[in-house]
Amino acid sequence: MNHYVDTPWTDRFALRTANLSSSVIRELLKLTEDPEVISFAGGLPAPEVFPLAEVETACRRVIAEQGHRALQYGTTEGYLPLREMLVRHMERYGIRVTPANILITSGSQQALDLIGKLMINSGDRILTEAPTYLGGLQAFNAYQAQYVTVPIDQDGMQVELLEAQLRTGPKFLYVLPNFHNPAGTTLPLERRRRLVELASRYGTPILEDDPYGQLRFEGDHLPPLVDIDSEYHGATAAGRPFRGGVIYLSTFSKTLAPGLRVAWVVAPADVIAKLVQMKQGSDLHTSTFNQMVVYETARGGFLDRHVRRIRSVYGERRAAMLSALEKHMPPGVEWTRPQGGLFLWATLPPGLDAADVLRDAVQAKVAFVPGKAFFPGAGGERSMRLNFSYCAPATLEEGVRRLAEVVDRAMAPVRVAVP
Amino acid sequence: MNHYVDTPWTDRFALRTANLSSSVIRELLKLTEDPEVISFAGGLPAPEVFPLAEVETACRRVIAEQGHRALQYGTTEGYLPLREMLVRHMERYGIRVTPANILITSGSQQALDLIGKLMINSGDRILTEAPTYLGGLQAFNAYQAQYVTVPIDQDGMQVELLEAQLRTGPKFLYVLPNFHNPAGTTLPLERRRRLVELASRYGTPILEDDPYGQLRFEGDHLPPLVDIDSEYHGATAAGRPFRGGVIYLSTFSKTLAPGLRVAWVVAPADVIAKLVQMKQGSDLHTSTFNQMVVYETARGGFLDRHVRRIRSVYGERRAAMLSALEKHMPPGVEWTRPQGGLFLWATLPPGLDAADVLRDAVQAKVAFVPGKAFFPGAGGERSMRLNFSYCAPATLEEGVRRLAEVVDRAMAPVRVAVP
Repeated sequence: MNHYVDTPWTDRFALRTANLSSSVIRELLKLTEDPEVISFAGGLPAPEVFPLAEVETACRRVIAEQGHRALQYGTTEGYLPLREMLVRHMERYGIRVTPANILITSGSQQALDLIGKLMINSGDRILTEAPTYLGGLQAFNAYQAQYVTVPIDQDGMQVELLEAQLRTGPKFLYVLPNFHNPAGTTLPLERRRRLVELASRYGTPILEDDPYGQLRFEGDHLPPLVDIDSEYHGATAAGRPFRGGVIYLSTFSKTLAPGLRVAWVVAPADVIAKLVQMKQGSDLHTSTFNQMVVYETARGGFLDRHVRRIRSVYGERRAAMLSALEKHMPPGVEWTRPQGGLFLWATLPPGLDAADVLRDAVQAKVAFVPGKAFFPGAGGERSMRLNFSYCAPATLEEGVRRLAEVVDRAMAPVRVAVP
Repeated sequence: MNHYVDTPWTDRFALRTANLSSSVIRELLKLTEDPEVISFAGGLPAPEVFPLAEVETACRRVIAEQGHRALQYGTTEGYLPLREMLVRHMERYGIRVTPANILITSGSQQALDLIGKLMINSGDRILTEAPTYLGGLQAFNAYQAQYVTVPIDQDGMQVELLEAQLRTGPKFLYVLPNFHNPAGTTLPLERRRRLVELASRYGTPILEDDPYGQLRFEGDHLPPLVDIDSEYHGATAAGRPFRGGVIYLSTFSKTLAPGLRVAWVVAPADVIAKLVQMKQGSDLHTSTFNQMVVYETARGGFLDRHVRRIRSVYGERRAAMLSALEKHMPPGVEWTRPQGGLFLWATLPPGLDAADVLRDAVQAKVAFVPGKAFFPGAGGERSMRLNFSYCAPATLEEGVRRLAEVVDRAMAPVRVAVP
């Protein structure tokens, strides 16, 4: 009797996921609770641009106009007017779909989880970029995924290396073509076409994660893979259902507010129907109230105007970080020059380890995420993900200055060793 | 090339969950969109008692007082003031815990999913009541659970049959002691004690699902299993961390509003830490805004006053349904008399099938959920789950009258066959 009282529960039986490693980002975000730390570690949108007044007005209108429906259970698929709005939104990017192609999720993280839940059998290989979004790895790891990877360069996935990996028979190909997290890179049009063509030839579904696509500061909009794939297949030609080879994810987290947890999936209707079943077992549905508030806030052109404002603020912050890096970083450190999004990717000279630099950086009251976290296997030891959306320009400059000092000190023995 | 364009995606590869059955409740809820159908099928709270004005005030105050924090990413564990409020709430029920024992989830459905994700290896046996909550089965099925069951009677789980099933080595025991969904039954104190004692002896964790515990219309509050278990182990005696054998789930969905999707788990701190990791991969965190709005709405004694009001409204509705059943139902039909909650469970005479009755009932513009849906294996063919929280008393009476007519017609051949 009582034989287990003093044994931790989680030691008492084989957990499904026995070798959980604690999340690097989460542990780091705890450090950043110290207000003196300048954090480039999170992926937090700029709080200054949150549409507080508009959300407040939307809350009031939703309660006045929707009444008890706003607080009641809703359908798993999501609030129909919001899905219809997203149909119109997707059409602007060349994707002709119907509400049956759209599922509302509780953030894009849930979409990654539901797709993992639906598709990944233990041991299945998932093809990712290296590096890739950490949250994708966390979602897929829970279903015991294995990984095959294609490295990126300053233009994103090195598509000329893709075919060899497609031959290994991955379950799907997970890719972030716009303003990549963590690398800040964007896949050029030619690579997009080649990627879609190869994936189609091998019958490998593409999971296109596009949280930042609207946040472009410079250069021309490039068609998403789901668009190229549709053209390629004629999948949305008149009278034909959308049945492409791409599942497309996007979110309101980076354009309205992450705290509302509203995102969406675009996929062939049969995939959506299965994801709906997965979601029903996962959380029944996304908050009715939040879906209505997002709809009410976004409609009537507000979202477009607001996205223009975010672009301008983030563009200014990116410029501030780039010029601070040029001003302060010692020679030998390299970084990407993102055309949009929230992150850039800096790489230290050979011989340095970003995890060691982080330890010193936290002492110097500046934080980032070491690159290793974003690789399913080895890699990224010399890299740092730097977020530029959260801090004001003057803070970005001061943070880069602190970081450059730490890097400079860390490079001293390297310089001595390699004269 | 293009060889898969016309093949549905979901036929193209082995999905993790190949034999998904579509949800009976979800399909039925679609029928109830016809406003002429009186639906006893859903588990919807009474919309008339939703605290619309209070939620609106809370939204305004949260935005005024929390500002951008209300719309920003939050910690996976949940909003600390809400978790502290829940510590005080649990203490009133005899459970002394700290915020480290509490995780906020996106509805209790997510808690069921996260526990399945953490604990269920493919083929693991889960011990449930028969019948049990359909959403629990949906959550666990996604992880390829198997089931062993203990039947219920009018006092809930027949605990004298429990030990034989515990001997089969189930991963955990899933139980709804208060105002059971679907059966409306409540486990008496002696059965609770015996259940906790047996589960402890066999080292089997208990998953106690208590969404309705506060909604008691008559009789005395009974201690939750987590309370009995703590006493039994002295697990929360002074200076000792909470380390009982029970994971306890509850929710604001039935006391404030389901559309906000805010619920909580109480568990030993090491279990919470693992569930936090699962949740991070599943949806990062529950909506920051909604957690703050729930906190702001519930605090200062409002939740207690509001729960008293719900109890009174639901008690009246239960009485209306019971008296309509007595007035209209033909002899041979039996039903439970719940002391709280949202549901009662009616059983037809031998020879009838509730699924057949439902088909005729929908013609007659009344709906319910056939009992089979709530059994992991065979069973429930003659039973109907009837919800009494959603409809006003006069509608309940009319719905029961329609249903009784359908049942009476269905019984005619039975009466002839069994003279």
